[in-house]
Amino acid sequence: MNIARREVQPRDVEIDILYCGVCHSDLHTARNDWSGTKYPAVPGHEIVGRITKVGSEVTKFKVGDLAGVGCLVDSCRTCDSCQKDLEQYCLNGNTGTYNSKDKYLEQQTYGGYSEKVVVDQDFVLRIPENLDLKAVAPLLCAGITTYSPLRHWNVGPDSKVAVVGLGGLGHMAIKIAKGMGAHVSLFSRTPSKEQEAKAMGADEMIISTDENQMKNAKGKFDLIIDTVPYDHDINPYILTLGVSGTLVLVGYLGEMEDMLKTVPMILGRRSVAGSVIGGIKETQEMLDFCGEKNILPEIEMINMQDINNAYERMLRSDVRYRFVIDMQSLKG
Amino acid sequence: MNIARREVQPRDVEIDILYCGVCHSDLHTARNDWSGTKYPAVPGHEIVGRITKVGSEVTKFKVGDLAGVGCLVDSCRTCDSCQKDLEQYCLNGNTGTYNSKDKYLEQQTYGGYSEKVVVDQDFVLRIPENLDLKAVAPLLCAGITTYSPLRHWNVGPDSKVAVVGLGGLGHMAIKIAKGMGAHVSLFSRTPSKEQEAKAMGADEMIISTDENQMKNAKGKFDLIIDTVPYDHDINPYILTLGVSGTLVLVGYLGEMEDMLKTVPMILGRRSVAGSVIGGIKETQEMLDFCGEKNILPEIEMINMQDINNAYERMLRSDVRYRFVIDMQSLKG
Repeated sequence: MNIARREVQPRDVEIDILYCGVCHSDLHTARNDWSGTKYPAVPGHEIVGRITKVGSEVTKFKVGDLAGVGCLVDSCRTCDSCQKDLEQYCLNGNTGTYNSKDKYLEQQTYGGYSEKVVVDQDFVLRIPENLDLKAVAPLLCAGITTYSPLRHWNVGPDSKVAVVGLGGLGHMAIKIAKGMGAHVSLFSRTPSKEQEAKAMGADEMIISTDENQMKNAKGKFDLIIDTVPYDHDINPYILTLGVSGTLVLVGYLGEMEDMLKTVPMILGRRSVAGSVIGGIKETQEMLDFCGEKNILPEIEMINMQDINNAYERMLRSDVRYRFVIDMQSLKG
Repeated sequence: MNIARREVQPRDVEIDILYCGVCHSDLHTARNDWSGTKYPAVPGHEIVGRITKVGSEVTKFKVGDLAGVGCLVDSCRTCDSCQKDLEQYCLNGNTGTYNSKDKYLEQQTYGGYSEKVVVDQDFVLRIPENLDLKAVAPLLCAGITTYSPLRHWNVGPDSKVAVVGLGGLGHMAIKIAKGMGAHVSLFSRTPSKEQEAKAMGADEMIISTDENQMKNAKGKFDLIIDTVPYDHDINPYILTLGVSGTLVLVGYLGEMEDMLKTVPMILGRRSVAGSVIGGIKETQEMLDFCGEKNILPEIEMINMQDINNAYERMLRSDVRYRFVIDMQSLKG
């Protein structure tokens, strides 16, 4: 299928897409789970490629540079959030990499399951040269989604961090928290994941269905990154927060059926928060941090033709831990 | 009735109680609403009086000094929380002013509805001389309960604060937030309270049952102090938080029946937190702050003999805004 990309504007760059990660949001959008999908839809917001054209006013990149594009391709740039480099919380509505309104064309934006993309230079990221390029793609969503709350809640060498769920987001949370020097625990229902989690940097694994293990973890953590993508009871995890600790939801958008218990929150100044991706400046910081620490996701390469099978496997949690599409397969 | 107070220990002071505020916790304890009440029970943890005896090692007070005692009379002093001046979150269980285990006697502690109390000097507060003494008492619970989260979440002249509910806690939250220089809004269901709220320092009142007013408040607040003492739906208030804003529960200990909606939390990095009273150092800071700004609660004086009637009126929210017992009435 052919889709129109806008002409390269003075501040745009055109990127030849080499790799594109497959995020759960892609699947939700393709299947219209959140409604609002406009067809034809082109998902993909973990884009890595090489610059093939630059507009006349582009100063940050030149033809031949490696470049990344994440979940955002524009924002209002004037609101309080944008002024604070928090474009992910743009008060006037940012422009998503796909299924948003294109700023120049009378059509929605199209994502990275595609040969090329045209993006304003201010929303294009630099890729550290030392990283394995095909594995970089998932950093642009899964990476920044976990990096941002870890940074915002000041994780460092004295921190005790726990991660709930070992999927695309969870495995990045472990690696990044470990990279920041924290003690890292994984909550999981699946004992067989222990070895893998430890290989990624987890110091311990807590089986969330084991009452004794949960009791032993009481009051332990400064920060919990909860990556579970469906409704679940967060009360048992809140009990494992220390005084002034915070549980941050990054995976589940919806209503929580289990009643929130306020006693442990009030009697320990504990918080429940949410967080989504990160701003452009912070995304660049995350890429540089991952470059410095050589942090990359575990990936499985697929061809564009395998995407529906990949979606099916994601629904069964049968992916370790992120699919990345070799976009060469689209051309070939 | 006669109750035994412990002998004044080397680090203790004995206080002749002049005034004692009436907190909702007193009522809950008297009626065993939370179970765990040991009878005979003597409530009262908003105590103001004058020192009548000091132990041999007491350095902070002398006979004749004014003194205050709040919700705590001791803590372990060694845990991580105590080391950080957060005795309210003592990990080994602090000693409440009433219905806790006394450190020296084989009995529970007895509160301020009484002639005298004996307390370790480290848990006794200095009272600013300029304040009207009988109104100081409620600062020791209602004051610190609202001051602590306002300080912890860094309220200052640029902050937009909202208070949910105009009772004992709510009216203190308005006065203290205003004293810190914040813009202060009150959420209430009762339009008739507007004038009083504004007299206390509120800049505006938002009728929480008015959909238009709630819509206009969307995304507005940095911090919400929710003082409502019963189960209620917090989702509409979360929508009025700005990016990175926090709603702090200080009034309701229990389960929240309305399902928590994660979308506004995730898409705006909004938090729900809890908070209880404050540490001793922070309570002194609060008293000094109120002395400096001349901040005091609105009170209604009662005699000890009127306490059951006062409880009944509190259950009907018929108190503006805190009862204080003149302890002279117990002696007289």
